[in-house]
Amino acid sequence: MYTLKHLYTNTRWQNQTGQADHEFMYETQRVAKTYQAGDFGLQSGETLLDARLSYVQVGRLNPDKDNLVLLPTYYGGTHEGNLPLIGAASALDPERYCILIPNLLGNGRSSSPSNAHPDQRNARFPKISLYDNVRLQHQLVQTHFSDAAIALVAGWSMGGMQALQWAALYPQQVHAAASICATARCWPHNQVFLEGVKAALTCDPVWNEGNYTTPPAAGLKAFARVYAGWAYSQAFFRNETYRQLGHQSIEELLRFWEEDHLQQDANDLLSMLHTWQTANISCNPVFNGDMGAALGAIQARCLIMPGSTDLYFTKADAEWEANQISNANFTLLESEWGHCAGGPGRNTKDTQTIHEALERLLNAR
Amino acid sequence: MYTLKHLYTNTRWQNQTGQADHEFMYETQRVAKTYQAGDFGLQSGETLLDARLSYVQVGRLNPDKDNLVLLPTYYGGTHEGNLPLIGAASALDPERYCILIPNLLGNGRSSSPSNAHPDQRNARFPKISLYDNVRLQHQLVQTHFSDAAIALVAGWSMGGMQALQWAALYPQQVHAAASICATARCWPHNQVFLEGVKAALTCDPVWNEGNYTTPPAAGLKAFARVYAGWAYSQAFFRNETYRQLGHQSIEELLRFWEEDHLQQDANDLLSMLHTWQTANISCNPVFNGDMGAALGAIQARCLIMPGSTDLYFTKADAEWEANQISNANFTLLESEWGHCAGGPGRNTKDTQTIHEALERLLNAR
Repeated sequence: MYTLKHLYTNTRWQNQTGQADHEFMYETQRVAKTYQAGDFGLQSGETLLDARLSYVQVGRLNPDKDNLVLLPTYYGGTHEGNLPLIGAASALDPERYCILIPNLLGNGRSSSPSNAHPDQRNARFPKISLYDNVRLQHQLVQTHFSDAAIALVAGWSMGGMQALQWAALYPQQVHAAASICATARCWPHNQVFLEGVKAALTCDPVWNEGNYTTPPAAGLKAFARVYAGWAYSQAFFRNETYRQLGHQSIEELLRFWEEDHLQQDANDLLSMLHTWQTANISCNPVFNGDMGAALGAIQARCLIMPGSTDLYFTKADAEWEANQISNANFTLLESEWGHCAGGPGRNTKDTQTIHEALERLLNAR
Repeated sequence: MYTLKHLYTNTRWQNQTGQADHEFMYETQRVAKTYQAGDFGLQSGETLLDARLSYVQVGRLNPDKDNLVLLPTYYGGTHEGNLPLIGAASALDPERYCILIPNLLGNGRSSSPSNAHPDQRNARFPKISLYDNVRLQHQLVQTHFSDAAIALVAGWSMGGMQALQWAALYPQQVHAAASICATARCWPHNQVFLEGVKAALTCDPVWNEGNYTTPPAAGLKAFARVYAGWAYSQAFFRNETYRQLGHQSIEELLRFWEEDHLQQDANDLLSMLHTWQTANISCNPVFNGDMGAALGAIQARCLIMPGSTDLYFTKADAEWEANQISNANFTLLESEWGHCAGGPGRNTKDTQTIHEALERLLNAR
């Protein structure tokens, strides 16, 4: 059983920002819950058996049922990784909002290759789409949260993709959405970058098409080394900014990435990677691939905040999308942290900027 | 035996630019020659046994001994890859200049893991530095070309690094130098990108620390897939510019990269990668790591031409260096081709821009 304090101090990434002053107050609500969705029909036509959506709830739904905040998780992260978003410096006050952090399918907490129904375990896990994730989360909100209004859905990276998918699919329900270092689809270069990390992992014959008996350690380490080059900016390395993460050298940083990825399940990583690589808020029965229609359907006040040095969710792509959202505030996150600029609590300055932007977004109603 | 025509039509990369109108005229000078340097002392303290520098010569040294042009090769390329630099539209006229294209050590033509003295074959091949390459080329010029004046040394990528190393080491001899999509050192992020492709290749157990008996095909393909994401820009993929290379899809492009890399020797690739990753024009006994001194030593008229969307030889790094070269012309190569913008003959527009810039550089004397 995790306490919130425990969660705060065990995030996979260093959290160098505010302490959790709500930790004791909300200890009773701290436990990750599981929404059992039963057999869940997927966009692919397959059925996810015994679908489970793991989530954390902090705060309570108010009588008006209009204080829900959703913070979907990012690639390779779990709900712990999003906790810095509700730290002391954040406007996301659990006394005011009912904050839900739903775990991405495939992340090892929600239904994933590593924990699925025995018939769908490991390599037999079905392909999951962005749309599947958001529909399942919506079902949770309908079932256990009175289909309440979403005061805000916000996320970093794949979390931001989910936020935009929410806003496009449920325009009446979502009042504000924030996409931090994310876009409404996986743009082609982003797909190519992901092809690279996938190739590095699956090059390890221990992986064995997902039917491994021991983890493909060499592949996981190669995956990590390739990924690290994409995660930050050129300036981050030039200026030795990795020292702020406690690493004295690039090699130390790369080994940290390796160790981190050795703790992840390869099939889980590849499942989420598929979701990411195919992500497109218009590729579903509602919008039939019409991105203009999907972006145009969004009614929420939107914060579109790409990182100025993000190498794969680029400013150019985010701006193109923002121009097609009726109520979008496009604000560049000026940072040399590359994609990781938007990582919750990854560095003080960018986290502060994000907190302030979210506060303005919430108060702009 | 290659004819120049043969060389032109068999470049590893599609050459979509001018035809080789010099091809027949210079057929007699077409054959790659080998400079046998004997045992060659390396910067590492090791000795390269039976060192061989493979090069192509087009044109003849003039009586004044001031018309030498050097075009060192790029990573993974051979002299064939540089031939578009002396195509019809180029100022590098073999009737006027004596053009030498020296093959990088490790590229499979000059001494390399795959062709070295039996005692240094494959995994036993010694580590080669940027300095080693340029010293060996200089020895060739001394020995067979009367230590002639270098009217121009120019190159793309690692070719540009060699050009800058030439200009720093032999400031009296080098009159002009052009660095296209290159920098005077491998900057830290560039090192990290290279760590990634290296990890992808060496993740294949068939590689076996370089002691393979059959090529590590899975590793070579993974290397190619990772590399492809870095080679072009985000816009190149967004705008489907790969169609100009004859590929109808990203997957087709990636398979082309795979096929291309399957034809390369893994140890050769890793040898050149080491040279690149450690490259620094000041890391040698002349400058002892003082980059300011190395850049300050350059007297040649310099063209510093980074690509505007190059993801690893960045504009920022090149500009920082150019500011420390006394006679540098910093010109951005505006292109969405990323690093490949500078690839000889890779696309018509950028090639034309490079040809014109080289012409201005030559005529600025």
